[in-house]
Formats: sequence, structure tokens, C-alpha cells
Amino acid sequence: MTQLELARKGIISDAAELVAEREGLDPELVRQGLAEGSIVVPINSNHRGLVEPCGIGKGLKTKVNANIGTSSDYGDIDTELEKLRIAIACGSDTVMDLSTGGDITAIRHTIIANSPIPVGTIPIYQAGIEAIAKRGAIVKMTADDIFTVIEQHARDGVDFMTIHCGVTQKAIARLKNEGRLTDVVSRGGTFLIGWMLHNEQENPLYEQYDRLLELAREFDFTLSLGDGLRPGSLADASDRAQMEELLTIGELVQRAWDAEVQVIVEGPGHVPLNQIEANVQLEKRICKGAPFYVLGPLVTDTAAGYDHIAAAIGGAIAAAAGADYLCYVTPSEHLSLPDPDDVRQGVIAARIAAHAGDIVKGVKGAWEWDRDMSLARRNLDWERQTELCVDPAKAREFRARHPSNGLGCSMCGDYCALELVSQLLGNPSQEC
Amino acid sequence: MTQLELARKGIISDAAELVAEREGLDPELVRQGLAEGSIVVPINSNHRGLVEPCGIGKGLKTKVNANIGTSSDYGDIDTELEKLRIAIACGSDTVMDLSTGGDITAIRHTIIANSPIPVGTIPIYQAGIEAIAKRGAIVKMTADDIFTVIEQHARDGVDFMTIHCGVTQKAIARLKNEGRLTDVVSRGGTFLIGWMLHNEQENPLYEQYDRLLELAREFDFTLSLGDGLRPGSLADASDRAQMEELLTIGELVQRAWDAEVQVIVEGPGHVPLNQIEANVQLEKRICKGAPFYVLGPLVTDTAAGYDHIAAAIGGAIAAAAGADYLCYVTPSEHLSLPDPDDVRQGVIAARIAAHAGDIVKGVKGAWEWDRDMSLARRNLDWERQTELCVDPAKAREFRARHPSNGLGCSMCGDYCALELVSQLLGNPSQEC
Repeated sequence: MTQLELARKGIISDAAELVAEREGLDPELVRQGLAEGSIVVPINSNHRGLVEPCGIGKGLKTKVNANIGTSSDYGDIDTELEKLRIAIACGSDTVMDLSTGGDITAIRHTIIANSPIPVGTIPIYQAGIEAIAKRGAIVKMTADDIFTVIEQHARDGVDFMTIHCGVTQKAIARLKNEGRLTDVVSRGGTFLIGWMLHNEQENPLYEQYDRLLELAREFDFTLSLGDGLRPGSLADASDRAQMEELLTIGELVQRAWDAEVQVIVEGPGHVPLNQIEANVQLEKRICKGAPFYVLGPLVTDTAAGYDHIAAAIGGAIAAAAGADYLCYVTPSEHLSLPDPDDVRQGVIAARIAAHAGDIVKGVKGAWEWDRDMSLARRNLDWERQTELCVDPAKAREFRARHPSNGLGCSMCGDYCALELVSQLLGNPSQEC
Repeated sequence: MTQLELARKGIISDAAELVAEREGLDPELVRQGLAEGSIVVPINSNHRGLVEPCGIGKGLKTKVNANIGTSSDYGDIDTELEKLRIAIACGSDTVMDLSTGGDITAIRHTIIANSPIPVGTIPIYQAGIEAIAKRGAIVKMTADDIFTVIEQHARDGVDFMTIHCGVTQKAIARLKNEGRLTDVVSRGGTFLIGWMLHNEQENPLYEQYDRLLELAREFDFTLSLGDGLRPGSLADASDRAQMEELLTIGELVQRAWDAEVQVIVEGPGHVPLNQIEANVQLEKRICKGAPFYVLGPLVTDTAAGYDHIAAAIGGAIAAAAGADYLCYVTPSEHLSLPDPDDVRQGVIAARIAAHAGDIVKGVKGAWEWDRDMSLARRNLDWERQTELCVDPAKAREFRARHPSNGLGCSMCGDYCALELVSQLLGNPSQEC
């Protein structure tokens, strides 16, 4: 039985119990969220017991995903394992293996075997690449080729899969009609759209959606409905093509729930700051509360080299508005495959964004974390401050760099405001 | 005559002309903004001709300031000049010399002599430190001591000065009544509050505000009304103490305008994401449209080591809501004095935030920058993309790291979505 099915039958699964414990919530609340679809716990039945359950959705801490994986230019498994290790050490909640280079199957097996956190994939990558190898072109891929790869990933224990079921011929017509600046930037979306245009056929993942739901139900992998038409530039954000796909995805969410399949919805992309809240509200309305998984969003197209910062801005606003799950963006986005340090930067930036959102969403423990930090700061308790930092190792590095003579840091040296105020005001609110 | 006075007389000054040229605006619009106080051009009459005029305020690009300067632990002038060089190279619009260590006067002279961008200071630092040296304690400082330092900075050509005139005895009473978590975190504020409590006297910068206005008018330095009671933790944001000071500052803005003195208002600090817009709106209302200069704001207290990211989130939201000027925060905030690389990180993060705001504020050229970048991206024109990046040198580093075999980057390798879509869709919107 899927987590959704168990919850609907009134059963609090072991996974739901563990999620509730990690979040400090009543297990019954998690069960209710699972039953209504506002919470998912991505945990493939072939992966159960090997992975720490992670809840994503309403009332829970906003989660962070790190994408790792090889590309055709860059395919060393040891580097990927190092990236996995760093992503976990930095506090990523899930990881996606997006490998497109080397022995994709072997790499996936290795990552799953070494990951204590849920693992996601985008099977269309492997299907497309195998079609090039076996049949000479992506457009020669068959529907069965795609479903074979999905089933393979499901058997391997993949906990959630991005599948672009909402890219329909109708959406492509809207895309053409729209006249976009950067037509399609989703790689999976491109594979499918290329296939659909060449073969003049409907998207097999839309047409044979029930076949997909059967697989998802059998293995209880969570369906992450990918946004193949997500905007790749601010100019294309929130346009008719994107909205057409969202409407279809809303219907597909409903069908997933009818089949007792766990489902989340993927979102943009590149979005101007003042359109982010509307994007979140629309997803929540159209998809009836299904968890929203956003990529960034990036609030400018111009920050390559620092896209983790552009994404942190968008991600924080999205999280505050109700997004449940942030896909990290690293400093190397748009330029290069991330290296292990980029993974660290990306995870920490996304965690800061998620937490900034959680504070204002009222997620349990979020406000208290900041309060504890500020209390430690006021008390000049450096050990406690360091422990409470989003990346304690980094804080320790900075603090060690220029040891101060006083209690304060080397920024203020002898003139630490907190030391002075403590002497002068007598710290009247010490008991806060 | 001050820039404000000239503008009120209907004169478009050379500085206003140059500002209009840099912003691509009608000089008459800049003159009107100067006349009504919604725009300032900080340019000390002793600095005229040596500094590139920079406009801050309504309708203009959101500006970025970099704080540099020594501390008692860390006082090498060559390092400060390197930080100045990097701040300018990375696109900072202004710089503040906040030195508190070494020969403060000599350092200021050197920074002013080497800075083509406007220079700001916080004179109370020097006044307090000299009081310790000459009189044994900050609380023994006299009002004349403070004004002597301010006049010295004015004669040296400082273009804008942070002066905490709004910290009154009434505000301290509200502070005590409030029971804050982190009472006072503004160093200048602490110096003054300590003095006021010890001497049981009103803030001399409030009491003798007209004396300050005379100096500001004589040298046309811009008054930056500091927020001595800015919140130092999310828990203290937007409280009665902060608002009491803001109300006083609003009155002081009006008096500055009456004296034809250019004035801007400083703002928080640490602010939860969902209170930022209200803070900007209140400043604009209470201070009748005076430009707003925010420090961050930081949307969480827990990001030490990455506070440039927490500040970029807050700064972008503030800029979008109408803030005119962002003071950078570096990764070393709360931990250590920034080194040259921290300055680079801080300036770039603040520029990304400012630009994200400018896009949605409709600042001239902001949208077009993103559009040009995305066009270059779609056309796989790497040279143009690099030029258009917020930090072209950084983008070049990433791009060089893992050279791709194809036209795309090493992130996607052979499976570049943009290359694929171009082949498959025939790029129908090529002419965009």
C-alpha cells in the first residue's frame, strides 16, 4: 500500500510516525496531510528501511533538494559520491541523481546504495540517451522505451521521479503561439517536445498516464510532475504556455490522488520577484494543495556565477508564500557542472531561503532557532552561536581567521556594541 | 549652494546632469527629485570634481554601498585600499570608511584620495575613540568633541555621514519599556546611548540639530539619519523602540529639507521576510519620500558565514518595495572583519538584490539587461553572456573549469536543452 492509501485508511505508517517525530508534530496531522495529498513522504517500497523518511508539504519544514550526477563531459562516480556526502553533511533533505554521462544505471545504483536520504531521478534522460545509442536519435524512442526505464528506476528503489506528463500538444501550440524568448529550457521537456513534434503524436506520458500511475502505485514512488515549459528567462515567466501546462498538471494531480499515488508539482524557473507569490498561489489553487517544488526561482537572468543567490531570493519568497520544497541552484548554474564546493554553496543558500520562509510560515521551531541564536549572540556565547549557525564549520573558519582580543569578534574589536550596551544599559532584558 | 538648493531654484547642476546621463533619464526629472527630496546626490563641495556623482532615490537604479575600514584588531591601510579597489571593480556605487583602528584620520584621507565614488563615514566612531584616548571614556565625550569631528570629516570632503540624531531619551524609554532580546546593536547608537544614560542628558545631535544642519549645508554633505535602535534580531524587528526613532527621524527629515540639506534615512537590520515591505512603506510615509538606505535587511539571524545571502533576500524584497540604497553585508558579518574576497561577495550579492528589485520597480534598463542576457543564452553566445553577467570574471572562471565539447556548457554536455530545442523547434521566436 502507498503512504497515501495507508493514511486514507486511517493508518499512521512507520514513515509518517518518523516524519512527525522529526518535525515535532502530532503524527495524526501528518496522516491527515498524507490522506488529503497536501503532504508526501517519498519512500519507494524497495527502499523502505534503508532511507530516513522525509515529509514534504503543508505545515512541515520547507525541504531542500540537491541535484548531483554526471554529464557527458564529466563523469567520475567518486566525485558524485563526494557531492552526495557534502549535500547530506550540509543538510540537504533529498538528492536527485541527474546523471547523463558514463554508466547511468551503475551510478544510480551506487548513489542509492550510499544515500540515507530519499533519491529522485528524471528517467526521460536515460530513455533519451539510450534511444540515441540504440536507435540513433531521441525522436526514435518508443513509449515502451520510456516506461521500461521508469520501471527500472522504480525497481532500483528511486523514491521520487520527475516526469513531464503535462507537456501536451495543446501546450506546444500555446508555446508556439506565445513567441517566447527562450522557448524550452527543461532538458526532459525538450526530449519530449522534440519527440512529439517529430512524430506528430501526443506525449506518451500524458496518453498513458494510467500506466504510469500503476507503476507509481506498485512501488509507491512519488510522482513529481515536471514543468517542461517552465520559463527560462524572466520575459517568459507566467505566460500562457506555462499556465496551460499547469492546468493539465492540476488534472493529473487529481487522477494521481484517485489512484492513491503520492504526487508533487514542479514549478519555475526564472520569475520576476513580484510574480513569485502569484505562481505559488496559482499552483496551490489549481493543484488543490499538492506540495509545490520550485527550481529557484531565479529573480534575475544575469546572476550566472552567483545563481545560488538569485535562487535564494526567489526561494525565500516562494517558501514564505507556501512553496514546500526548494530545488537548490548552485553558483555554477548556466555555466558548468557543479563541483563539490558548489554543492555546499547551493545547499546552504537553499537552506537559508527555506528557513527564512519557515519563520514567516510559522513552521514549528523556526522562530525559536533565530531566538536562540540571538540570545547566544547577545550573551557573546561564541560556542553556542557557532553550533546554531546554518553551517557551523564555515562560521568556525571565519571566527578563527582574525582572533579578537576581546569578547566580541574582530569586526568591532574593542568597540563591540553588544559588550558596550551590556556594560552601559545593564542589559535589562537579560532574562528574555 | 547645496544640490537641493540649486534644484529648488530650478537649476540643473552639473552633478544632476551627470546623474541623469548615467541613468538614461531626463535631467529635469533628477532636478525635480532633488528639489522634492526624493533624490540625493551626495557630493561634498570639497570633493566636487574628484568624485563621480551618484544619484540615490526615486526612479533611479537602486544603489549599493560597501563598508570598509580598519578595526582595533586589524588595521592595515594597504588591505583597505585593496578592499576599496575590489568594491569599485565589482560595481559598488559608494563606499563607507568605518575605520576604528590605527590612524583613523590618515586612513580616511587615503581612502578619499583614492576613491572615485562617494565616500561616507560615521563620525561618532572617531569621536568616541578619541574620547577614550583623551578623556578616559566615551561617556566623557563632549558635544563639541562630536561636532569637531563632524566638521573635520566635512572639511576632508566626506560626501555623506551617518549621524544618529533620532536616538532621544524618549526612544531610550521606549527601548527599556519594550524589553528587547538584543537591545542595541548599532555601534554608533551604543556610543550615544551610553553617553546619554550616564550623563542623563538628551542626545546632543538631536538637541543641536540646527548646528549639524549648518555644517551639512556649508559643505553639502548628505545627512544619513542613522537608526541607532535598529533591530539586531528578528524578535526585535518593527518594535516600539524602532518606530519611536523613525517618527523622530521623520521630523528631522523635514527640518533638513527646510534648511536645504540633502538627507536620507537608514533602516534595519534584522527583519522577518513578511515585515520588510511594511518597513519600507512606513519609512516612505513617515519620512515623506526621503530615500531609504537599508542594512540588509537580514531575513534570519542564523546565517552567519553566509549573511550576504540572508541580506540579498531581504535587500531584494526591500528594493522591490521601494528602498533606494542597499548597504552590503559580507559573509564575515557577525564573525570577523571582511577581507577583500568578502568585499567582492558582499558587493555582488547586494547588486543582485538591487537589480532584482529594479526589474520589478521598472527602473530604466533593468528589464532590458535580463532580456539581452536571455537572448545571448538562447543563441549560445557565450562571449555576450559573459559580458552581461553581474561578475564577468567569475563567469569566465566557471566556464573555463570544465570546457564542453559542444556549444553548450559542461552542465548539460551533449544534451543542451537550448541546442536541442533550436534543432527541433526551429527556434520560431529567433527574432525576439
